[in-house]
Amino acid sequence: MVGIIMGSISDLKVMEEAVEICKQFGVAYEIDIVSAHRTPLKMVEYAQTARERGVKVIIAGAGGAAHLPGMVASVTTLPVIGVPVKSSNSIDGWDSVLSILQMPSGVPVATVALNGAKNAGILAIQMIGIENQEIAIKLQKYKTELSDKVAEMVSELRNK
Amino acid sequence: MVGIIMGSISDLKVMEEAVEICKQFGVAYEIDIVSAHRTPLKMVEYAQTARERGVKVIIAGAGGAAHLPGMVASVTTLPVIGVPVKSSNSIDGWDSVLSILQMPSGVPVATVALNGAKNAGILAIQMIGIENQEIAIKLQKYKTELSDKVAEMVSELRNK
Amino acid sequence: MVGIIMGSISDLKVMEEAVEICKQFGVAYEIDIVSAHRTPLKMVEYAQTARERGVKVIIAGAGGAAHLPGMVASVTTLPVIGVPVKSSNSIDGWDSVLSILQMPSGVPVATVALNGAKNAGILAIQMIGIENQEIAIKLQKYKTELSDKVAEMVSELRNK
Amino acid sequence: MVGIIMGSISDLKVMEEAVEICKQFGVAYEIDIVSAHRTPLKMVEYAQTARERGVKVIIAGAGGAAHLPGMVASVTTLPVIGVPVKSSNSIDGWDSVLSILQMPSGVPVATVALNGAKNAGILAIQMIGIENQEIAIKLQKYKTELSDKVAEMVSELRNK
Amino acid sequence: MVGIIMGSISDLKVMEEAVEICKQFGVAYEIDIVSAHRTPLKMVEYAQTARERGVKVIIAGAGGAAHLPGMVASVTTLPVIGVPVKSSNSIDGWDSVLSILQMPSGVPVATVALNGAKNAGILAIQMIGIENQEIAIKLQKYKTELSDKVAEMVSELRNK
Amino acid sequence: MVGIIMGSISDLKVMEEAVEICKQFGVAYEIDIVSAHRTPLKMVEYAQTARERGVKVIIAGAGGAAHLPGMVASVTTLPVIGVPVKSSNSIDGWDSVLSILQMPSGVPVATVALNGAKNAGILAIQMIGIENQEIAIKLQKYKTELSDKVAEMVSELRNK
Amino acid sequence: MVGIIMGSISDLKVMEEAVEICKQFGVAYEIDIVSAHRTPLKMVEYAQTARERGVKVIIAGAGGAAHLPGMVASVTTLPVIGVPVKSSNSIDGWDSVLSILQMPSGVPVATVALNGAKNAGILAIQMIGIENQEIAIKLQKYKTELSDKVAEMVSELRNK
Amino acid sequence: MVGIIMGSISDLKVMEEAVEICKQFGVAYEIDIVSAHRTPLKMVEYAQTARERGVKVIIAGAGGAAHLPGMVASVTTLPVIGVPVKSSNSIDGWDSVLSILQMPSGVPVATVALNGAKNAGILAIQMIGIENQEIAIKLQKYKTELSDKVAEMVSELRNK
Repeated sequence: MVGIIMGSISDLKVMEEAVEICKQFGVAYEIDIVSAHRTPLKMVEYAQTARERGVKVIIAGAGGAAHLPGMVASVTTLPVIGVPVKSSNSIDGWDSVLSILQMPSGVPVATVALNGAKNAGILAIQMIGIENQEIAIKLQKYKTELSDKVAEMVSELRNK
Repeated sequence: MVGIIMGSISDLKVMEEAVEICKQFGVAYEIDIVSAHRTPLKMVEYAQTARERGVKVIIAGAGGAAHLPGMVASVTTLPVIGVPVKSSNSIDGWDSVLSILQMPSGVPVATVALNGAKNAGILAIQMIGIENQEIAIKLQKYKTELSDKVAEMVSELRNK
Repeated sequence: MVGIIMGSISDLKVMEEAVEICKQFGVAYEIDIVSAHRTPLKMVEYAQTARERGVKVIIAGAGGAAHLPGMVASVTTLPVIGVPVKSSNSIDGWDSVLSILQMPSGVPVATVALNGAKNAGILAIQMIGIENQEIAIKLQKYKTELSDKVAEMVSELRNK
Repeated sequence: MVGIIMGSISDLKVMEEAVEICKQFGVAYEIDIVSAHRTPLKMVEYAQTARERGVKVIIAGAGGAAHLPGMVASVTTLPVIGVPVKSSNSIDGWDSVLSILQMPSGVPVATVALNGAKNAGILAIQMIGIENQEIAIKLQKYKTELSDKVAEMVSELRNK
Repeated sequence: MVGIIMGSISDLKVMEEAVEICKQFGVAYEIDIVSAHRTPLKMVEYAQTARERGVKVIIAGAGGAAHLPGMVASVTTLPVIGVPVKSSNSIDGWDSVLSILQMPSGVPVATVALNGAKNAGILAIQMIGIENQEIAIKLQKYKTELSDKVAEMVSELRNK
Repeated sequence: MVGIIMGSISDLKVMEEAVEICKQFGVAYEIDIVSAHRTPLKMVEYAQTARERGVKVIIAGAGGAAHLPGMVASVTTLPVIGVPVKSSNSIDGWDSVLSILQMPSGVPVATVALNGAKNAGILAIQMIGIENQEIAIKLQKYKTELSDKVAEMVSELRNK
Repeated sequence: MVGIIMGSISDLKVMEEAVEICKQFGVAYEIDIVSAHRTPLKMVEYAQTARERGVKVIIAGAGGAAHLPGMVASVTTLPVIGVPVKSSNSIDGWDSVLSILQMPSGVPVATVALNGAKNAGILAIQMIGIENQEIAIKLQKYKTELSDKVAEMVSELRNK
Repeated sequence: MVGIIMGSISDLKVMEEAVEICKQFGVAYEIDIVSAHRTPLKMVEYAQTARERGVKVIIAGAGGAAHLPGMVASVTTLPVIGVPVKSSNSIDGWDSVLSILQMPSGVPVATVALNGAKNAGILAIQMIGIENQEIAIKLQKYKTELSDKVAEMVSELRNK
């Protein structure tokens, strides 16, 4: 199961892309709102119990001074993927990116691009696919589809 | 009492300036190492018990993805002053500054300049001095000294 | 009393959030327009007389080369909270943030996030609440409300 | 097995920290120099054959216009961890960070902090530890050691 | 012949300006969609066969972690012009610019301004015009037209 | 007379270049230390009396949150030239540059390059030279010397 | 006479504010379009003949790689004021600002804020006002008006 | 012949790498110091006569507000390669990069990495090699050598 959390419901529009990827690959997920700054104790508990609840990877999205991914990573030993969200009061997203990326030695967060929830989903699937042949095959198929879409674009270009 | 915390002993060189200010103004302080990412539960406990222990203001210094000041502020209702520390792996200090400054609505951190622990100390004294006439007078005296130092510099300049 | 000042009436839309917090916590405030660059002498006088007028904390908002918070802090011994405002000609807010944050040793400004007037208000309340039990209780209640709002968001998420 | 690659032997000083983590956790690794720009065909072949060679996670470090992690990720379905290296001609590391982080939808790279090879190693171990109880226990022990080191720092602080 | 490639059809709006310049100067061109991350093998093949197909200069446009220009340059010995495209998820274009510009020693990319496909076209024409007198004359004429347009603007200004 | 002021004697090393230019062009100058944050009232007085003391242009250098040039400009009607100084705690000079450059409408500061005190001196001379034929001739001669120095460099290059 | 030039008629919207200031202060001006990159020879001639034509100060506005102000300053001994214009393809204005501000030793440009043509106008007037008592009085009156506008804003605030 | 110019002899240390590449590929070159700001008329003349003197490509290096490459490109129809030099007073190289890269439509500069004079040399050779089979073969051999160097690094790594 992939655990998908975000700091506010306003992040849902971005984070839904991670949900879509889980659905598309047939991987179970749970989704929750966990705020580092407004529900710090819930956050600690979420991270402490994640592995025993069957979560294999956590995807955490947050904006501004985005502490959620790093703080969850400080409590759990599961891999944590951080999605910097370009929220309304962010300074062009730089705050979210740097707050998630620049973690100190010992506590990594796997950071993806600004608003890159889709890639966070794929990365979670890839992690689960390390030992899972079925998922590995689906990932290969996904790559082929990416390539096919480029071929379609080429047709579109040729027909212009 | 001013609570002075930092994420690592390597921050002490910067944070000692806050200690010096407390000593200079005769204000009690406690100093501790509390890491958001390596000791998250100690951090929560530190923040939860600060007010009852007699702490009036918390000064928290951290570098890189600096989550300590914001996370402490998420737990306590005391004012928290954040000192961005330019640590060795920081990207020129931008990560520390933005991780501390750009807190979401509801959970402020009073951010001072990069490596500005001295100013964090003065700001803590100013907060305590709001209702304390004796400290207010010392602060006024401190301002006069700042001005006197400029006068000394002018003498130095004239004698060159 | 909290003194809330800004460099121009165009900053009012941002700064009103600080006013709202004062009202919400039942703390007196005064509001004024004081421009560092257009009314420098009024600014000096404002800062010189603030403490005797009963002001306990000053919140100053400004954009661009935002000198108001730092200059007020140079004159008064009260704590000054600076709100960087993302004004129309700002370079993405970086000018306001750095002009307020990077104060020299001796003269701190408690800087909050870009457009973070709400947090400036809360920080002012926290400062006043250091010695004021009633306000400390209200701040604790405010924290609970923040947490409750997340719980509401979770319900909203579940019902989607 | 963890595959550790870098664009140049000058990156080894940084990347050795990932090797150390693998040794510490008793996880097999292979190390190689694979340059996106000087050996593009070797890079493609490396990525195409990684899974069949038994590689479970790839850690790729590169500086400047750092294309290695992203290009390897474009070929393999394994998770790829990217380490931005602050090389001599880099613009303060920003080029490495953005070239690795800002991957387009469909092809994620799990980016860690600038020069964060140690965290890349831990993240790789965490991925392998998703389904591996023994490693999960070692990771929990590692977290305890991080916390113990803070306790040692506190002793050091107290004895000053 | 000028080879014009881009990572996605969404870049066409920007890249068409390079096409227009080729038309305007009567220089043959081919246009294709080649994605470094979605069609890495097609990209390698494109670059390997470009010279033998009669391509003299390659113009490659890409956004975000823009690896296409640099990767094409790693395979071919033809000059490669890179156009950083300000795509929707870019961090203000900085990622595209730095990913294309900061190539390591040995593998240059001739980088033009953000969204500067028109200038990429002119630069390609200039390269072809090194040994081609007819094109050199057209380029001189183009310069005169630029100057004439300024003269027209002056008339417009005078008539206001 | 050119008025040269700076916020601290530590800025003198940079600001002396402006003094040198005044000497070289035979233009009178006065030099003083005036700190916006430590001697705000002296600063106001300095600016209020500058014109009547015979000052024609003010050169003000400052680092970090550099308020001195803008605040002096808010009080005097003389042209003020601002020199951003890259001081020890500056964030790579960006804070000084933006604090001086981004002045609001109505109160300009003529900003020169980071640490550009020499150019500040020349600019002051140019302003005085607007109506002064003798100085204009000296400025023309200075330009010739700049060009001569390049000719000398060419000789040096040829003799290598 | 103030010489006002810009690189393109698209800059007129910004640069008109400088014209307005000249009109308001009753100072003669000439306005022209002079492009460093499209009309380099006209630019050189403009700068060479400016002083003899009676120009006292040159205001030059340009966007992107904004070379106009610096190149004009390389030819004339008159003071040159540079206005960085945030043009459509600019990277948030940083290119214009840095291209104008960071001039090498010997050739200053008096740089004003991004899009700060109004302040460029006032600065030009201040330069002319150095020796002109009538203009100095108008500048003092202008300062009073700035202050009066703040007083009006205060009334507006009080009446809300 | 490749024309290599720079704004100051202090840039020679960086620019010599372009000279080395010309020597290595047996391509004639001329080297000169041409300053946009100190010798503007020489610069115009250099650019106007370059093609007739037999120059096929111009490599221009400059630091700070680096106007040389763009201004040369404004006068000649030859391709101009710009090398941003990280000079002593540069703001981390950003000023040089943006002043060279962000040229307006109509006047391209082929920009290479910060201090990337070696790549500027290779790019010039590639341009000359478009129609020159002998040089194309040498470029292919150069690519092989780059790849061989990586193989040597791998041996070095294996022997550690």
